[in-house]
Amino acid sequence: MPEHNIVVLGGGLVGGFIARELSRSSLGGERLRVTLVDRDSAGLERSLAQAQSLGGRLSTNQADVSDRDVLLKVIEEATLIVGALPGHLGFAALRTVIESGRSVVDISFCPEDLLALDSLARNNGCTVVVDCGVMPGLGGMLAVNFAQRFRDEGGEPQSMRILVGGLPIVRRWPFEYTAPFSPSDVIEEYVRPARVLEHGKLVEYPALSGIEHIEFPGIGTLEAFNTDGLRSLLVTLNVPSMVEKTLRYPGHAEKMRLLRELGLFSPAPLRVAAPGGSRLDVAPLALAETLLRQAWSLPDGEGELTAMRVEVSGALPGESGAEALTLRADLLDYGDSESYASSMARTTGWPAIIAARMILDGTLVRPGVLAPELIGQQEPLWRRMLVELEAAGIEIRESRLESAAPPAQAAVL
Amino acid sequence: MPEHNIVVLGGGLVGGFIARELSRSSLGGERLRVTLVDRDSAGLERSLAQAQSLGGRLSTNQADVSDRDVLLKVIEEATLIVGALPGHLGFAALRTVIESGRSVVDISFCPEDLLALDSLARNNGCTVVVDCGVMPGLGGMLAVNFAQRFRDEGGEPQSMRILVGGLPIVRRWPFEYTAPFSPSDVIEEYVRPARVLEHGKLVEYPALSGIEHIEFPGIGTLEAFNTDGLRSLLVTLNVPSMVEKTLRYPGHAEKMRLLRELGLFSPAPLRVAAPGGSRLDVAPLALAETLLRQAWSLPDGEGELTAMRVEVSGALPGESGAEALTLRADLLDYGDSESYASSMARTTGWPAIIAARMILDGTLVRPGVLAPELIGQQEPLWRRMLVELEAAGIEIRESRLESAAPPAQAAVL
Repeated sequence: MPEHNIVVLGGGLVGGFIARELSRSSLGGERLRVTLVDRDSAGLERSLAQAQSLGGRLSTNQADVSDRDVLLKVIEEATLIVGALPGHLGFAALRTVIESGRSVVDISFCPEDLLALDSLARNNGCTVVVDCGVMPGLGGMLAVNFAQRFRDEGGEPQSMRILVGGLPIVRRWPFEYTAPFSPSDVIEEYVRPARVLEHGKLVEYPALSGIEHIEFPGIGTLEAFNTDGLRSLLVTLNVPSMVEKTLRYPGHAEKMRLLRELGLFSPAPLRVAAPGGSRLDVAPLALAETLLRQAWSLPDGEGELTAMRVEVSGALPGESGAEALTLRADLLDYGDSESYASSMARTTGWPAIIAARMILDGTLVRPGVLAPELIGQQEPLWRRMLVELEAAGIEIRESRLESAAPPAQAAVL
Repeated sequence: MPEHNIVVLGGGLVGGFIARELSRSSLGGERLRVTLVDRDSAGLERSLAQAQSLGGRLSTNQADVSDRDVLLKVIEEATLIVGALPGHLGFAALRTVIESGRSVVDISFCPEDLLALDSLARNNGCTVVVDCGVMPGLGGMLAVNFAQRFRDEGGEPQSMRILVGGLPIVRRWPFEYTAPFSPSDVIEEYVRPARVLEHGKLVEYPALSGIEHIEFPGIGTLEAFNTDGLRSLLVTLNVPSMVEKTLRYPGHAEKMRLLRELGLFSPAPLRVAAPGGSRLDVAPLALAETLLRQAWSLPDGEGELTAMRVEVSGALPGESGAEALTLRADLLDYGDSESYASSMARTTGWPAIIAARMILDGTLVRPGVLAPELIGQQEPLWRRMLVELEAAGIEIRESRLESAAPPAQAAVL
């Protein structure tokens, strides 16, 4: 039996990618043993075939891990778990895994408060890195790292913003958007109020508000609008003003606001006419999901991209008083059809893969539920994250925007 | 028993208005006797109360005229019928009325070919004026009258266009629109291909296409887009290029195209998720009607308007060759809350009322199914129409746009 025995829970686009890539890699000269688990055989077979064609050795296990006993059996021989289940299954599975005393890297992005599992993880000696994708995940690592660099230079970060979005390369009216996952998750982002920090105060804005245009090198003009994506950064990062926005091609937010205003995202059933003069009760949201699944599907053979910008701005002591500084990171990733990897799978999967490798080789050993920002905070971990991301072809372009003028105190990015 | 005994079929917004106004008027010194018929009591009671407060004497009759025997009984003593039924009931009722040998003015705008009833009407000696509202109706009268004036001056009309729309005064995002009737009728206008005549050729365009901006005096900028509104003008008017467009506040068409593109106007049932993990089949169109009924309702106390522009353009012999001429009519009508009259009821109702009075006093006697354009073709009828419209406060502003340059032969308005 090899030393490292990894079980990946969930064979969706990202889970399958993570399992495949882990099965191709080695650690300390030893090949990793990887088992991919899913309720449905389709995703398992696809990942198996892809892993084989890429030279990986993947095992699969068709099992419904929403059953606790099944899950315990599935992870019996595992040394590390990677959680890539749908959000609504994520929390229960995570708790069971921690109860069994195993370490986990999780990207199920479940809605529950994951810190509730912190003392359980510490008592059981498990290292649990949660929300470890591109955003939440890598974006937060960059933000935390930039804020630290500000302070290292004797300055003070005043504001932070993260702009992130997945987009199709081919733009088609009306939405100019394709969703790699269920439309309901995207609609949820467009409905849930966005929590923003302004001068230390927590403020809520409606989702899809605060639309602005930004220029993104290599793409052109994108729009950015408020969504509720700060998550753990509201607690872990000490910067007075923080916002997370979603990136789309210009005009998308207005169209989604129209659908929301029309009532199409409401889960409350409405009585509508049915054939034969009868009536039936239907939730507009259920129909919206069906219609948008068609409208947002990526046509075969077309590619997508992931764009992210992280900025931390503030004041730095200069020769003649305070100067304004912005540290910026831009990430632009395209899918790679030769390795069956959408950019969404690559950018979400690689931070999780690298974190998993850090736990396996003993680089990351702190027990407890850890926000991904921890990796941006600890320089050795962060250096390794950057090096391994670059090796995977995910490039982060940093820039330093300086201005002799002092930063406007009231400015909120 | 008075000489004139009028039965108005349909007590909706327009039918109720027509009945009320006819009940207040007299002809040859004699008061008209008017009976309003509807299946539901609510509209009857409202019209009765309004007629009384305005000094009219209205009778009501609650009856379901979709039953042929009921209809025959209802019109037993009538000397003239005004048809204001929903479109799907209009044709059958019209045929029954003509079979009984009675004359009719109809505004039910039914989808069937009304000329199919022409020989029946002629055989029975009935004068049947159909589609006699604002558009179809008054707009066609103006178009035909302008084309005739062109030829009277020795010129040749080359193109005709009619732009018409009902709009709320208060503009609210996203639709800036309220519908005085069922949303399904409006959606139908946004789905049915628009038949247009171009240089003598019949061409079909998608509804909501051909969006252009026009300046309307008293309102500002409106958008106009193709809808299928020419109806009988395609047959009755000999002008090589003709188009009808609907007027809305700018941006409306794009939003409706978005909803259409999304599939929300499709009558084909889709399988969607229902509570408890079950599935149900729902027609997106049925939900769209429910949602748009809310979104397009006119808030209490807010007013609406009707705007129409009719233009006939072409060449006129000048001293040094052909000159370009456009004859234009603009109609802008606001509702009158003191007489409980929306502009939609006023502008649709008055052409029908005036046509009814022409039949009653023997001015209009030709038997057969008559397109409303006939009234614009015959100068005495047209003069009277204009005079009585003006007396009702509906003003048509004509203008004559001349240019020394010859009209571009290829130009389609």
